[in-house]
Amino acid sequence: MKRIKCIIKYDGTNFSGYQVQPKGRTVQEELEKALKKIHKGEKKSVIASGRTDARVHALGQVIHFDTHLDIPPANWKRAFNAVLPEDIMVKKAAIVSSNFHARFDVVEKEYHYFLSTEKEKNVFIRNYAFHFTHHLDLQAINAACKLLEGEHDFSSFCAAKAGVKGLKVRTIYHASCYKDEEKQQIEFVFKGNGFLYNMVRILVGTLIEVGRGKRQPSDIIDMIEAKDRSVAGKTAPAQGLFLWNVVYNDDCG
Amino acid sequence: MKRIKCIIKYDGTNFSGYQVQPKGRTVQEELEKALKKIHKGEKKSVIASGRTDARVHALGQVIHFDTHLDIPPANWKRAFNAVLPEDIMVKKAAIVSSNFHARFDVVEKEYHYFLSTEKEKNVFIRNYAFHFTHHLDLQAINAACKLLEGEHDFSSFCAAKAGVKGLKVRTIYHASCYKDEEKQQIEFVFKGNGFLYNMVRILVGTLIEVGRGKRQPSDIIDMIEAKDRSVAGKTAPAQGLFLWNVVYNDDCG
Repeated sequence: MKRIKCIIKYDGTNFSGYQVQPKGRTVQEELEKALKKIHKGEKKSVIASGRTDARVHALGQVIHFDTHLDIPPANWKRAFNAVLPEDIMVKKAAIVSSNFHARFDVVEKEYHYFLSTEKEKNVFIRNYAFHFTHHLDLQAINAACKLLEGEHDFSSFCAAKAGVKGLKVRTIYHASCYKDEEKQQIEFVFKGNGFLYNMVRILVGTLIEVGRGKRQPSDIIDMIEAKDRSVAGKTAPAQGLFLWNVVYNDDCG
Repeated sequence: MKRIKCIIKYDGTNFSGYQVQPKGRTVQEELEKALKKIHKGEKKSVIASGRTDARVHALGQVIHFDTHLDIPPANWKRAFNAVLPEDIMVKKAAIVSSNFHARFDVVEKEYHYFLSTEKEKNVFIRNYAFHFTHHLDLQAINAACKLLEGEHDFSSFCAAKAGVKGLKVRTIYHASCYKDEEKQQIEFVFKGNGFLYNMVRILVGTLIEVGRGKRQPSDIIDMIEAKDRSVAGKTAPAQGLFLWNVVYNDDCG
C-alpha cells in the first residue's frame, strides 16, 4: 500500500462544504467518487487537513489516501484531474510515508480573506470576496492584528454552536491586512497552528469593526480575556475565505 | 408613458443566454420578472441591444422598457437592483426619448474576450476566461487584427447554422490584442457597428491560430474573400466573452 498526499484547490461556490453530509454536494464526496473510479469501483476514503464550510474556497487544501495502484505521482495528478469535476483540481501529488496524516500532522494553516472595495458591486467577484465599501483604517486593523498574534484562548472567536471539544487555545503566528488599490481589494492573512470553527471569519468581522472605528485595537485584549462569543464581531460571509496553505513537518511541498 | 434606458451587467455563467427560451434560465426573463414585480403584477417587455449566448457575460448590455411609474432614474437603479437576482445588476438608469430603441439605434458595439495564460488552470477564473497556455505571437495577431478592420462581408466568421437574414457586411472599427503579464491574461478588444452570430468567438479562434503560427496574418484577406465558414478558425468558448459597451447617437451615457 502506498500513501498519496495531494494538494488540491477548489471553488467552494457550488459545495455545501468539504465534509460529506446527508444533503448537498461536498468536496469530499467528489474526491472519493473520483478515486473510486480510478480504483475501478473500490471504495476509497480521503482524509483532509480539516473541513471547510459551504462556499469557502481552497487553494492549498491537503488530503491523503492509501492505494495499491502503482502510479507515479505526476500521473496521479493527471489521472485525478481527468475525472474530477471542473471546480476541484489537484495541484500536486506525492508519495508519502505511511506515517503521514493530513489532519494530525498539521504544523501551520494559512487562510486569506478578501474584501472587494469596488464602488459598484462586481457581479463577477461576488462568489470570491465580501463586497465592502465603507472606509477602513488599515493602521488600526493592523494594530489589532498584532494583538491577536501569539498563543491565546480564542473562545470569543469560536462559533457559539460549535461544540468544539477540548481547549480553545491556539497560536496565531501572523495576522495582517493589506490594501491593493489597483485590484480594489483588501486582503487579510492569518497563519496559525490551527483555527477554531468560524474563527477566521469572526476575526475578520471583528477587525472590520476596528477598521470602522466601532472598536479600538486595544479592545482585542478584552475580547480575548472575556472568552465569550458575544463580545466579538459579526461572522464575515463565507465566500471571501480561502484556505491558502497547510504546512507539515519535513514538508516536501 | 416614460421610456427608461438601463445599462446592465450580468454574469452569464448560470444563464442559457439573454433571450427568453422554452427551457433554461435567461437574463431577459429575470429582467421582465423583476419589472413585473416593480409594476405590481403588470407584464413588462424589455428590449435589449442584442442577444448574448449561454455563458456569455455583459458589462454594458443596454435595455429599454416603457413605464407609467413616476420613479426618478437613481431610484430606478435601486428599485431594480433590489429585486434582481445576484448575477444581474443595473449600472445606470436614465429616462430617454420615446424614440430611443435599444436595438435599432445601436451605433457601435464593443466586445472583449479573455484568455487565461496561467500555467495551472485557475478554477476561480474558469467561468470568465478561456484557459490557453500555448505560446501566442501577439505581433502576428495584431497584424491580423489590422486586416480585419474596415467594412467587410464577414460570412466566413458567422456561425454556419445562424440563419442570419440579410447582408453579412459589417464594419470593424477596431480590433486588437494585449497581453497583461501580471494578470496572466490576454485580452482581445473588438469594436464594430454590429457583429454576426458567434462572430467575435470565431474571430478569436481564428486569431489564436494566427498567433500559433498555423496561419499567416495575410490569410485573413483570403478568409474574408472566401465567404465560407469552414475556412475560418474554431469558435472560441463562450465564457471568455464579455459584451463590454454599446454606443448610441447622442449618447447621454
